[in-house]
Amino acid sequence: MKKIITISREFGSGGRTIGKHLAEELGVPCYDSEIIEKVAIESGFAEEYVQEKGEHTHPSLLYSLFTNRTIYTGPTNEDKIWIIQCKVIKELAEKGPCVIVGRCADYILRNRDDVMKVFIYGDVEARAKRIVEVYGEKDDAPVKRIKDKDKRRAAYYQHYTDMNWGASRNYHVCLDSSFIGIDECVKILKDIALNAD
Amino acid sequence: MKKIITISREFGSGGRTIGKHLAEELGVPCYDSEIIEKVAIESGFAEEYVQEKGEHTHPSLLYSLFTNRTIYTGPTNEDKIWIIQCKVIKELAEKGPCVIVGRCADYILRNRDDVMKVFIYGDVEARAKRIVEVYGEKDDAPVKRIKDKDKRRAAYYQHYTDMNWGASRNYHVCLDSSFIGIDECVKILKDIALNAD
Repeated sequence: MKKIITISREFGSGGRTIGKHLAEELGVPCYDSEIIEKVAIESGFAEEYVQEKGEHTHPSLLYSLFTNRTIYTGPTNEDKIWIIQCKVIKELAEKGPCVIVGRCADYILRNRDDVMKVFIYGDVEARAKRIVEVYGEKDDAPVKRIKDKDKRRAAYYQHYTDMNWGASRNYHVCLDSSFIGIDECVKILKDIALNAD
Repeated sequence: MKKIITISREFGSGGRTIGKHLAEELGVPCYDSEIIEKVAIESGFAEEYVQEKGEHTHPSLLYSLFTNRTIYTGPTNEDKIWIIQCKVIKELAEKGPCVIVGRCADYILRNRDDVMKVFIYGDVEARAKRIVEVYGEKDDAPVKRIKDKDKRRAAYYQHYTDMNWGASRNYHVCLDSSFIGIDECVKILKDIALNAD
């Protein structure tokens, strides 16, 4: 069995729910908000700040030019959070079998050979419906909110990993949850995890 | 059940074998070389030529500039093959449930709502081992051959579909066969196909 399962997911795809149920099925812990909490404690930043900066990259070059911030002034708060996040995720993986949702864990644990990397995504319309129904999102434009969030996650992933978020070759399994269904995704992932060498 | 299953695959990933076994399990035909044969008959080109041109795009811009072929001179042979290939694949899909391997069938059938789109890929080293073992490839540099072939398939797909080959969002399921195993891939795809609405 693969001991560590990382789940990258598009916003609204149900990736977090899949991770939680999969961990229950396998009898292992699922780390999600725990990572934010630990990073907040170790960094001294507030949880909300860590949550938000975990999806932001540096200011764009354009911004830098306008504000004359082209000279390197040391690591940004995002960089500091990234470094602590890497440490926290590596420590959690060391503790034993688990499921880790988000936070570029697939990349952070790339040198381990006991990791199964999963990407969960879905049709934009289905995800918009889901965030309104399941999370009670009040936003008038859920599709726009989803696209913005995907864009930020992709940019963050690209910035820190230099890889393309959602490119199938970065993962062992990619599942469209809006096509397959949440429960079936859990079942498939459980089978693969138990069968993989 | 989804009636039509399209399988895009990296060279040496076992995608063709998976398609064949999946079709047997589902009791439906698997179209692979039949498509080449039909396109050859309808176009008048030789099968080998159709096979080869099904992975080639037009000459590059650089080539066009050097040879003064910048003026549009009508459809190329590749374009003619593409048009017939679209027709053949649409006709096969109309005949009933089936598995179709390669030839951009996922894109060609994009307007149907009974299609399940699959991408099979794998670790380069594992694929190199496979083409030597299973297909008896004599090439001294199987890794280079695999990379060249992937590159050509990607360029062909991009040219005719304007989409990114292997981007997970273009498919419903993406499986790393070198991680999951051929038989387990067949099992997973069968389950999804039978369960999908």
